[in-house]
Amino acid sequence: MAQPLALQGLLKQLARLPGLGPRSAQRVALALFAAPTRLNDLTEALQRAAQQLGTCTVCGNLAEFNADGGCVCPICLSTTRDATTLCVVESVADIWALERGGDYRGRYHVLGGVVSALQGVSPDDLSLGQLEHRLRTAIPAVQEVILALGASLEGQTTSHLVASLVQRAAPQAILSTLAKGMPVGASVDYLDEGTLGLALAHRQRL
Amino acid sequence: MAQPLALQGLLKQLARLPGLGPRSAQRVALALFAAPTRLNDLTEALQRAAQQLGTCTVCGNLAEFNADGGCVCPICLSTTRDATTLCVVESVADIWALERGGDYRGRYHVLGGVVSALQGVSPDDLSLGQLEHRLRTAIPAVQEVILALGASLEGQTTSHLVASLVQRAAPQAILSTLAKGMPVGASVDYLDEGTLGLALAHRQRL
Repeated sequence: MAQPLALQGLLKQLARLPGLGPRSAQRVALALFAAPTRLNDLTEALQRAAQQLGTCTVCGNLAEFNADGGCVCPICLSTTRDATTLCVVESVADIWALERGGDYRGRYHVLGGVVSALQGVSPDDLSLGQLEHRLRTAIPAVQEVILALGASLEGQTTSHLVASLVQRAAPQAILSTLAKGMPVGASVDYLDEGTLGLALAHRQRL
Repeated sequence: MAQPLALQGLLKQLARLPGLGPRSAQRVALALFAAPTRLNDLTEALQRAAQQLGTCTVCGNLAEFNADGGCVCPICLSTTRDATTLCVVESVADIWALERGGDYRGRYHVLGGVVSALQGVSPDDLSLGQLEHRLRTAIPAVQEVILALGASLEGQTTSHLVASLVQRAAPQAILSTLAKGMPVGASVDYLDEGTLGLALAHRQRL
């Protein structure tokens, strides 16, 4: 028995989502049909999101369209956040993670990825041009750029790339990076040698 | 920073899907916004599915609406499939699994679940009334009912329930159940004692 076309189309779209495969797409499709309103609720949520959300033209965050049709996120619009500190992140999810803590009061720049030869991501695929333009034209000038990229090989390669860009476009700015060490709640015997080595090297006085 | 309302709504709907939680919902939402057409593709697939798909009024399978607005699945409409053999399954996903093999040429009945005290599923939540009506009114009469429910405690409880219903409503019908034993590709030393015991008890002559 061939599956109905409308079902095949839905399964194909669901299976393309990250973390879902053909089997879990089937499970999701059946769950949507199991409860009468769920299919419509999801459809409406997607439509609303498509109409109302865009990419912040300053930093790349996901944001609501403004009344004038432009799209600048609340963090870039805020007058209480420190405009002289810029935190460079890989994706919007990283902004969400940092905002959950609430410790950071500066602004962001979303690169849209990290350089990766394996995944075919080159520096041209990242928003480095926008970052350079932003650093050159910022008023007040940026005084610190925090590199908050992943502690992977690709993240570190990209950090070096961004660092040299910052030194060129905003020579006055301090460069910093997230501290490496033990995560909160970790136990020493489960830590890998790399993390343990860095935690030792950067040990702090009590 | 609070997330935009449209985004919160989308995340809530995505996180309700089986297999997705708050974190994976975020990942899915960002992936939908990362590629320009994906959000619309998914929305359209959902709309098409909602318009064109319903539950087969005979067996409970997921099927396209017919030209007359009714909804009977191709398996129930087919004249080449054996109408005297009925396979009772828990969900539509089980039909898909059995149809993938292509070994079964009879019809189905979807119960819509199994009795489970833990999950609050009572016999009234299953399509037992429809099954009884179907067995009493079937022309030609059903000659065999295959119980293809899970090999769990809940599945077996439900099998007993369905068996007594079949004996009452269609006393002429043979009752059978899926064979228990070694799955294809399994190695003996990884099998649990229960499966191994059943595989031994039901051993077959070469």
